[in-house]
Amino acid sequence: MWPKTRTWLDEGKVLYDFVCGGPGELTVHNNEVLTILNQNVGDGWWEAKNSRGEKGLVPEAYIEIISVPEPSFPPPPPPKWQPSPQTAPSIPPSRPQPPQSQDTWDPPPPTRDNWKSTTGNSVSTWQQSNNTANHGNVGRPLKHESSEDWDEDDDWDDEDDDSVVSGEMDYQGGIGGCQRRERDHKHVRKPIVGRFSSFGKQFVEAYLFDFDLVPVPAENCQINVVEGSDGPYYQHQNDLYSCTITSPKKETKFRGMKSFIVYQITPTFSGIQVSRRYKHFDWLHDRLVDKFPTVAVPPLPEKQISGRFEDDFIQARQRGLQLWMDRMCKHPVVSDSEVFRHFLTCTDEKKWKAGKRQAEKDQYQQGKVFLVVQSPSVPLNPQETDDTLEKFTKFVKVMDDSVKQVSSVGESNAKRHESTFSKEFKRVGGAFISLSKSFEYDNRVDSNNLTKAIEHTGKTYESIGYMYQEQPRNDMIPLLVGINEYKGLLAVFPDVMAVHKGFTSKIQENAGKYSDSEIEQMQSRASVATYTILAEMNHFQQHRVTDFKSYMQEFLKGQIAFYQQITQKLQETLAQYETA
Amino acid sequence: MWPKTRTWLDEGKVLYDFVCGGPGELTVHNNEVLTILNQNVGDGWWEAKNSRGEKGLVPEAYIEIISVPEPSFPPPPPPKWQPSPQTAPSIPPSRPQPPQSQDTWDPPPPTRDNWKSTTGNSVSTWQQSNNTANHGNVGRPLKHESSEDWDEDDDWDDEDDDSVVSGEMDYQGGIGGCQRRERDHKHVRKPIVGRFSSFGKQFVEAYLFDFDLVPVPAENCQINVVEGSDGPYYQHQNDLYSCTITSPKKETKFRGMKSFIVYQITPTFSGIQVSRRYKHFDWLHDRLVDKFPTVAVPPLPEKQISGRFEDDFIQARQRGLQLWMDRMCKHPVVSDSEVFRHFLTCTDEKKWKAGKRQAEKDQYQQGKVFLVVQSPSVPLNPQETDDTLEKFTKFVKVMDDSVKQVSSVGESNAKRHESTFSKEFKRVGGAFISLSKSFEYDNRVDSNNLTKAIEHTGKTYESIGYMYQEQPRNDMIPLLVGINEYKGLLAVFPDVMAVHKGFTSKIQENAGKYSDSEIEQMQSRASVATYTILAEMNHFQQHRVTDFKSYMQEFLKGQIAFYQQITQKLQETLAQYETA
Repeated sequence: MWPKTRTWLDEGKVLYDFVCGGPGELTVHNNEVLTILNQNVGDGWWEAKNSRGEKGLVPEAYIEIISVPEPSFPPPPPPKWQPSPQTAPSIPPSRPQPPQSQDTWDPPPPTRDNWKSTTGNSVSTWQQSNNTANHGNVGRPLKHESSEDWDEDDDWDDEDDDSVVSGEMDYQGGIGGCQRRERDHKHVRKPIVGRFSSFGKQFVEAYLFDFDLVPVPAENCQINVVEGSDGPYYQHQNDLYSCTITSPKKETKFRGMKSFIVYQITPTFSGIQVSRRYKHFDWLHDRLVDKFPTVAVPPLPEKQISGRFEDDFIQARQRGLQLWMDRMCKHPVVSDSEVFRHFLTCTDEKKWKAGKRQAEKDQYQQGKVFLVVQSPSVPLNPQETDDTLEKFTKFVKVMDDSVKQVSSVGESNAKRHESTFSKEFKRVGGAFISLSKSFEYDNRVDSNNLTKAIEHTGKTYESIGYMYQEQPRNDMIPLLVGINEYKGLLAVFPDVMAVHKGFTSKIQENAGKYSDSEIEQMQSRASVATYTILAEMNHFQQHRVTDFKSYMQEFLKGQIAFYQQITQKLQETLAQYETA
Repeated sequence: MWPKTRTWLDEGKVLYDFVCGGPGELTVHNNEVLTILNQNVGDGWWEAKNSRGEKGLVPEAYIEIISVPEPSFPPPPPPKWQPSPQTAPSIPPSRPQPPQSQDTWDPPPPTRDNWKSTTGNSVSTWQQSNNTANHGNVGRPLKHESSEDWDEDDDWDDEDDDSVVSGEMDYQGGIGGCQRRERDHKHVRKPIVGRFSSFGKQFVEAYLFDFDLVPVPAENCQINVVEGSDGPYYQHQNDLYSCTITSPKKETKFRGMKSFIVYQITPTFSGIQVSRRYKHFDWLHDRLVDKFPTVAVPPLPEKQISGRFEDDFIQARQRGLQLWMDRMCKHPVVSDSEVFRHFLTCTDEKKWKAGKRQAEKDQYQQGKVFLVVQSPSVPLNPQETDDTLEKFTKFVKVMDDSVKQVSSVGESNAKRHESTFSKEFKRVGGAFISLSKSFEYDNRVDSNNLTKAIEHTGKTYESIGYMYQEQPRNDMIPLLVGINEYKGLLAVFPDVMAVHKGFTSKIQENAGKYSDSEIEQMQSRASVATYTILAEMNHFQQHRVTDFKSYMQEFLKGQIAFYQQITQKLQETLAQYETA
């Protein structure tokens, strides 16, 4: 089924500069008029021809059909998931409405065994699947057999590496894992919408008012919040595990006209490698955001349009995805979730598609996830809770400011090491070398020895210059990678905190419209959500302490090693003067 | 006797900005028109009144009497010494001319005993003299009793602290002893004239042609050049000694309208303190330059007009004078010379004046100093000597370039440490402190410990920032002081080398006009001078090696201590995380 039907149009105006990022693509410029040759290429691409007769693929979102008024912002991509009227009332009703139907997929609680049985013992990867899977594409122009064909029905969301952030590519692009969603949205095709946009909020708040929704029994709960000495915390239901992301490989489709990168992921619990594209990570990210409104799911590493097949970028993205994966694996709720396990384990094409659709139709997502939360029965003290969350909200703001400061200062410090500092020491080295060259005019033994010692000193300072150039990789840049990951994490916390505020204010607004027992039931439901927020908060704080301790220690160790090495080099060169 | 008679004039135009540097002086600006109240103030000063009716002293060289055409450069000061026709033929004669008279002062070879007897055992200083000396100044307006009165007859050369270099005062001004004569001569009142200006050259070359001049017997020679393994070198005639310059004190004259600084000098050989003003150093410098054409007498520390009574400047000048004095004390010819000993020892007013006049009339100065040189009797190989001197000349040029490079790079490096580097580390510190402040929102024990450790790290980086600010004083600036001293020394070498070239070419030019035996005699005389140049060259090279070895070692030791200290501070802060 095609998600969209398009009429054939002769001309389109280019809205944003687009730089050809791979074979078959066409570089186009803002306001350029193109002839649109094929709007049915798929994957968000159109085939077009420019005024010089050059043909190629251009992102369709970059082209405006000439009769349509020009938007002021790149249009958002087509929504990935059209909620069915059954699962999502579009407006919180003034009176509670029973759900019109129950969802058809009632997933069993995810356990390792469950998932093991799904994945089996196969070590097949997508790539291996490629060799056997070969589906025809009758009636789909320019859509050819490829590794992607087996998820043909969601090819419309093939944003993948093609989704764009243009704007300045600073050195962070090369260090991996730096989330920059908040920066330079000028050309972002997919605008960042907080999950508490009016759209998402409705789905979360629906949970409050639908009294027909029944929490699942404790033994079937997917999320367990228990009380601890530092407040509520998540209880892990399975053992901790991790995943390694390796061997990014370039693959192609459309007879080589479209290229993409696949990453190999190996979870420790299975040891079985799966192949995933960036667009699958993107899909997973969005699923997690939809599924868990009170989990701070950090953004993925930044997308970019140009140079996305360059090794540096691929490696940086790999590191960024690894960081994201590490953080998700450490999250008790995410790492235990079915959708996440599906992503990490599924190697079978049909099961992959089925699992994807199941996840998208998951009845326990958005606000309804709180139906599968087991939380302490002790009611929360409203004032105390408000204070705690208010304080945490302030903390998030202040920490956000301070990590941005560290990030900005650190970036400039790293750049200074690489440029100003490095040049400075090389210049000092050069000056000493030039001095030693002039001293070569005097050939007496004691003069010669001095000359050599000064030359040695010059070379030492030159090598110290190179050390300054390289040093940020050993201390500041790793620190910045961590700092930037936290920038991304902190950016999503306001949405998490908004669930509590949203519920509290909704209950207040509707106080007169409901019976006391209904209000009490709503409060009880809100309390379950708030327990998850408190658990999320504690989870964050606990990891923040561990992470920053480690970041700072590693940074300082790098710095100490650096200054020790300089000291040692200087001592070596000083020793040259003993014989001078 | 007044050196100049001036007519009273009503108006004068100011040629250069002059900033009032002490009480009684008047700040004036370029092109301002002044009423000249008194041209007989003396010491190079005029009393003037500006258009606002403010009165005060202004350097006369800064004012142009309005009817006189404007010079393009500040005029040189009146010459300090008018050579009498007896001692200095104004043009080298085409045929040798006997000296018209013998000088009246035939100094005994300077020995410590001689000079001891001159100074006696008195510990009197000029300042002590002030208390007793009180001479009237009949007929001299605005000239009052002061410590300076006892050298009233050379008060016209009271350039002292008042001689000027304007232009940018960079941080070097504060570090002392940096000779900058070659820089920014825009407002230098006393232009730097190489001693081989046509004027000085004549006096030196006169030595070649005056066959009546008779070298003194070996035992009376003031300079001894002997052959050594590395070529000719100076033989010290007395023990090495040094002098300390201490306690600069402000004194005044003209009833407090004119201020100046006196420095206390104590030579190790006498232990007796003498008081000298900058102008006396200046006098000594010029005497040494006149007396020894083949000695590289480095320039004095730079003069400046504004801020010359500020402590920083006074201390810097003191250090500069100390460096100059150290170098002169280490010079076998200078340190043994009568004029230098006179400067270091004379505490008696009358003897001071007599010694000054004797020195100015010294018959063995300029070229005639070679009459008191005892050099090896082996004739120099002309070609070999030319090669040696040519090579050294090139060396001086190349070393001059390289010390200028080190100086420029080092200055910029010191500034970068004081500004960019320092700020950079303080900023890093500030960012960590801000991070720790945000972490204070979380009060759990492990969080608190981390917060404290990060705060400690922030403070550590701030203190490292301050260390960067201070560090140049411990390594780069001392190195630059040495480098700058050499810049001054190298700048005077071309004049030294020119003596050889001048003699050689003079002999060639006059080859046809003289008999063979006369030419031979001239060559023999030139050879004596060349021996002193070779000795000067060796003296320079020997000290260069010692000096630069020491400069570099001290610099590196400072750098090592610096990086060790940083390392230690970082290790201390890393240890904070062990309990975090």
